[in-house]
Amino acid sequence: MRNKSPRHRWLSRAFALAILIVASVLHVTSARAEDGYELWLRYHPLTAGQATIYRIDASQLVMGSATPTQRVTREELQRGLLGLLGQAPSLSDTVTRDGAIIVGTPASSPLIARLRLDTADLGHEGYLIRHVNVDGHAATVIIANDDIGALYGAFHFLRLLQTDQPIAHLDLRDSPRVKLRVLDHWDNLDGSVERGYAGTSIWDWFKLPDWLAPRYTDYARANASIGINGVVLNNVNATPQILTPVYLEKVAALANVFRPYGIRVYLSARFSAPIEIGGLKTADPLDPQVQQWWRTKAGEIYKLIPDFGGFLVKANSEGQPGPQDYGRTHADGANMLADALAPHGGVVMWRAFVYSQSASADRAKQAYDEFKSLDGHFRANVLLQVKNGPIDFQPREPFNPLFGAMPKTPLMMEFQITKEYLGFATHLVYLGPLYEEVLSADTMTHGKGSTVAKVIDGTLDNHTLSGIAGVANIGTDQNWSGSVFNQANWYVFGRLAWNPTQSSRAIADDWVRMTFTNDVAFVKPVVDMMMGSREAAVDYMTPLGLHHLMGPGHHYGPAPWDASEPRADWRPVYYHRADSEGIGFDRTRSGSDAVDQYEPSIAAQFNDVKQTPEELLLWFHHVSWDYRMRSGQTLWYELVAHYTQGVDHVMQMRETWSRLDGYIDTERYQQTATFLAIQEREAQWWRDACIAYFQSISGRPLPPGFAPPQHSLKYYESLSFPYVPGH
Amino acid sequence: MRNKSPRHRWLSRAFALAILIVASVLHVTSARAEDGYELWLRYHPLTAGQATIYRIDASQLVMGSATPTQRVTREELQRGLLGLLGQAPSLSDTVTRDGAIIVGTPASSPLIARLRLDTADLGHEGYLIRHVNVDGHAATVIIANDDIGALYGAFHFLRLLQTDQPIAHLDLRDSPRVKLRVLDHWDNLDGSVERGYAGTSIWDWFKLPDWLAPRYTDYARANASIGINGVVLNNVNATPQILTPVYLEKVAALANVFRPYGIRVYLSARFSAPIEIGGLKTADPLDPQVQQWWRTKAGEIYKLIPDFGGFLVKANSEGQPGPQDYGRTHADGANMLADALAPHGGVVMWRAFVYSQSASADRAKQAYDEFKSLDGHFRANVLLQVKNGPIDFQPREPFNPLFGAMPKTPLMMEFQITKEYLGFATHLVYLGPLYEEVLSADTMTHGKGSTVAKVIDGTLDNHTLSGIAGVANIGTDQNWSGSVFNQANWYVFGRLAWNPTQSSRAIADDWVRMTFTNDVAFVKPVVDMMMGSREAAVDYMTPLGLHHLMGPGHHYGPAPWDASEPRADWRPVYYHRADSEGIGFDRTRSGSDAVDQYEPSIAAQFNDVKQTPEELLLWFHHVSWDYRMRSGQTLWYELVAHYTQGVDHVMQMRETWSRLDGYIDTERYQQTATFLAIQEREAQWWRDACIAYFQSISGRPLPPGFAPPQHSLKYYESLSFPYVPGH
Repeated sequence: MRNKSPRHRWLSRAFALAILIVASVLHVTSARAEDGYELWLRYHPLTAGQATIYRIDASQLVMGSATPTQRVTREELQRGLLGLLGQAPSLSDTVTRDGAIIVGTPASSPLIARLRLDTADLGHEGYLIRHVNVDGHAATVIIANDDIGALYGAFHFLRLLQTDQPIAHLDLRDSPRVKLRVLDHWDNLDGSVERGYAGTSIWDWFKLPDWLAPRYTDYARANASIGINGVVLNNVNATPQILTPVYLEKVAALANVFRPYGIRVYLSARFSAPIEIGGLKTADPLDPQVQQWWRTKAGEIYKLIPDFGGFLVKANSEGQPGPQDYGRTHADGANMLADALAPHGGVVMWRAFVYSQSASADRAKQAYDEFKSLDGHFRANVLLQVKNGPIDFQPREPFNPLFGAMPKTPLMMEFQITKEYLGFATHLVYLGPLYEEVLSADTMTHGKGSTVAKVIDGTLDNHTLSGIAGVANIGTDQNWSGSVFNQANWYVFGRLAWNPTQSSRAIADDWVRMTFTNDVAFVKPVVDMMMGSREAAVDYMTPLGLHHLMGPGHHYGPAPWDASEPRADWRPVYYHRADSEGIGFDRTRSGSDAVDQYEPSIAAQFNDVKQTPEELLLWFHHVSWDYRMRSGQTLWYELVAHYTQGVDHVMQMRETWSRLDGYIDTERYQQTATFLAIQEREAQWWRDACIAYFQSISGRPLPPGFAPPQHSLKYYESLSFPYVPGH
Repeated sequence: MRNKSPRHRWLSRAFALAILIVASVLHVTSARAEDGYELWLRYHPLTAGQATIYRIDASQLVMGSATPTQRVTREELQRGLLGLLGQAPSLSDTVTRDGAIIVGTPASSPLIARLRLDTADLGHEGYLIRHVNVDGHAATVIIANDDIGALYGAFHFLRLLQTDQPIAHLDLRDSPRVKLRVLDHWDNLDGSVERGYAGTSIWDWFKLPDWLAPRYTDYARANASIGINGVVLNNVNATPQILTPVYLEKVAALANVFRPYGIRVYLSARFSAPIEIGGLKTADPLDPQVQQWWRTKAGEIYKLIPDFGGFLVKANSEGQPGPQDYGRTHADGANMLADALAPHGGVVMWRAFVYSQSASADRAKQAYDEFKSLDGHFRANVLLQVKNGPIDFQPREPFNPLFGAMPKTPLMMEFQITKEYLGFATHLVYLGPLYEEVLSADTMTHGKGSTVAKVIDGTLDNHTLSGIAGVANIGTDQNWSGSVFNQANWYVFGRLAWNPTQSSRAIADDWVRMTFTNDVAFVKPVVDMMMGSREAAVDYMTPLGLHHLMGPGHHYGPAPWDASEPRADWRPVYYHRADSEGIGFDRTRSGSDAVDQYEPSIAAQFNDVKQTPEELLLWFHHVSWDYRMRSGQTLWYELVAHYTQGVDHVMQMRETWSRLDGYIDTERYQQTATFLAIQEREAQWWRDACIAYFQSISGRPLPPGFAPPQHSLKYYESLSFPYVPGH
């Protein structure tokens, strides 16, 4: 390169300066207009210093574009690097300079094959990222056995830049520990979303299959970036119409959009569909006509969607039809569907969330009672999908006793991402700690270290089929999840699904950096706030093992007094059992004996009031209001203290956030500030209503130093909410 | 200014070049990502040439910011000019250079007062824009009597730039001809929108009053830019809850957002609210307790919203409660509410869309029959809101005979912007020609020239109170209206509401330029396409005066055979009356005599099959299939020809659009292309289903040269649509 003349130097400096100015204007402009749509894939410019360093190792992109997945991988890297570094790497067929990024598989790239890197343990979806020297040039390779692994690796590489990590000497490899990592959409065909707090369904069924909204692609990108590889499109309370040809064509159109991103489509199947859309007189799983109907239906689906994932089924639960309607077992039902799907490689995800139509002595026991004995009776392509706790996605539950109790059956975890019981859209509650608490719980079934995570990932009982599902919090809101912070719950679900042993704090740290900024003055307090937020919600809603105290039907706000639901086990009073003597559900051997659904050493612990962790005390024990807690205070005191502490924590979150104005764009800052104000008001409402109610039962005076409820119990009982979302 | 050194010249040229490059990159980037949210207020950069010219006359902004309206006016001008010209004018207290823009009122600005321009005829909302010389400098003044007029003027000024008009020597003045220019939202409190095809309600009631979405402000900006000054927030099929304190607080929060933009909030009031939320035993308008309840309620509302607009009421129509439930008249009901609102300056908009619970001989006659005799019986603050035609927003109806028939009552026009009967979200149907056709129709009531527009603007009968309403097509879809082209219907409604004598073609031209581009190679064919689109829809749905042939309940697609509705006058067969002899509704003197609801000369014309415009033939006459049309062909031939022509026109629109790829961003281009494909398929469906059905009745062979329907009548009859939006 010839020496530059002074004029040329001026020219290039002026150019650079102008571009910097425009870029900073751009930054300001875009900072003003952030509506959250970009999620954690914002790719906004890094600081000039950091970008300069990264550009050294991102000068050139050497990769194929022969397959759809290769093409979207290349697009994502170009988009990401252009956004983050202000310049996209040049595309090249060979490595011609330092800082090349080489992406692909040994099979698709002779260059990669020549490197002879060990990919044996990467499996189908894993990848390695390594600093290498190619033809005398420093390079970074992102290598996988299959295209999809390379896409996952590309997202990992981008994440390193987004989170301010060094990339000069990378040597890492990763692959998912769980095979099926699935979002369950409780979306109805009319566009409503059961327990959805982020607008309506993003599936525009009416305009499908013609109109493929750009949002579908962005949805797939977001999922692939965190390793999600399956999507159940419709509500478990399913309508049979989804299985009719006109809707299957729409489903196929979505599957086509998702396919390059490694995402398979699944459907919730209504068990009685053979009657409703098949014209049969029965849906009996042992009836040959019924079996044939499902085989034919499966064939029809796979003709349209060759990589169709399979069915999710809610049967004989909350009024849904199922095999028990014909005197058959859940295994009979699941196996019949499994047999229809098996020739095509599909699976059945059969939900264990069942309870009989008539209220039982302890609803918490029913899933175990129904399924435990069926272990070993399911086909190889059946997974049993078990909610994290034995009741229903409460702020805190002990782990579900089915985990560890069915060694011959792959158990799939069902988490809830949408915050049905955790404050809907507006409460800032990061669910990472909840997920981590459950996954790290020790079932003890094979001795110490038999964690729920090991049940889920199949290693405890040597299952090759494994899965984890999250009930999505996604809707048509421009920010996808109803609030920016709810995006973190989608994010952490995906990351933990990939590897259930990760730290939810580390994931929160990544998310904050990708979503907002790498400025530690912002990152640190926000991660702290997130990490404490779930315990705060437990405290202001259902501390000390309380559960199911929310408003009837819509599940909004506190209603510990409510007895309006038709079923006893839908009523808060069924769960807290407060009386003048004490409070709590006796699930010990002298009570419902739910404790004995756990491994004996755990059962013994839960059976003993003194050994039971206080955070689960009232889940397992009915104890006196005057019971002495470890603090030396009475239960009544601790109850009031916990409720108060929950509200105090929300106040602290508001205070923290108020100090962070200016670090991020106005729109997301302001929305969060507003939502925290709502959360504080509603936390206060929860606290006050519950204290007012429990005080009316306990007859105890408020412990000194605690503020009395702002209103009378009568006031709280009088509130009604006719138009609650998600209901 | 000192001479620049060569180095400086290089520097500035390099700068300019760099900025141009970045700007063009930006332009490409943003062109890729246009989701339609910006509507016609995009303010994207003009061509460099045009921007340079405009900058001469937009160098400086001299205006106050003492009031909220002044501040939003200033912000809009800064935003608009920055976006269009690449630089915002400098703010100044005085005119210091050529090209100043001076904005304000004589009262708020001594500078403007000093100009002594005549503002007497501008009224409260009008403005003048004029080129003047101030202190030796060329300047443009935007002057009004009130802040809101200046805001309207600012939007007009920006429109001139957006549409490539000269601004150097402006001298124009404008003020609205209609006082109340209102959007009616048929939005329910649960978020659904009756007849909404653009997602759900943009009012997030659950998060109000706390969370004021930025979208509310953008909604107000869009409305103000076209002169809309009122919003009815909730569905005419109203729930009483909207009038409870908790919801009124939410309404007040929205009113606060809208107020700086000159927009008043109105509510649909349920007539029986005194019973449902007031605890009274009756809603009889002559009952003193009922009257007192409404007076108290009005006081409560105005305390929260001092500029509350008033009530819209649907009473004794389609099952809604009303004064007739108590043996009272519509006037009794309207006046009772009017008396409650009068002390606060509010109005009642009482809908004339009523028809009795039992089907009558001719539903088209009912509104006239019910209301004509009440002329002169309404309070001064009551407007009667009349749909454009006598049935219900059909693709074509004759004008409503009430126009001109109630000289003592201000009649408010009710148009439908949402396309309930015109293809929902996906059909490209520009409604400007429909509105224009109705507004320019001559009622003849005061002789020739007694147009509907003059009834509406009050000039025909000297009313100072006047109004026009449009049923909104707005929802949570990111593009607001379900498609980009549906935005044009919101736009043209606003512009015609301001001045009902404008040309819908000129307005389409403005809209296309503001929404897409000023490139005439794009503008001309797109405006042509829009102008022909409504006639095409009439042709492929309901040609020659046919009406109400759509699917039952959901109104999707053709169902001329349908007799499933419980009421005779909800069934297509009631309207087309096809039999082996002929087709059409005999509304002549030998039939239902609806013709005599019109002024005698018009009645005579409509009564005579030979004088009736053929486009309304079957509205007024039952004629033989073999009736000779003006073309010399039979009615049956013309019917088939019109249906075919409708489909052909859509094919031409697709063809036109396919030649326009590259003129605009990919996202909006592609969505429109997809929607046109849907429209063509559905137009074909309408044509084929209607021809198949009418042929089964007429027994006539298909005229030579026309393709037979693609499917059998049985096939079309078998289609069912369980999840149609808006229903």
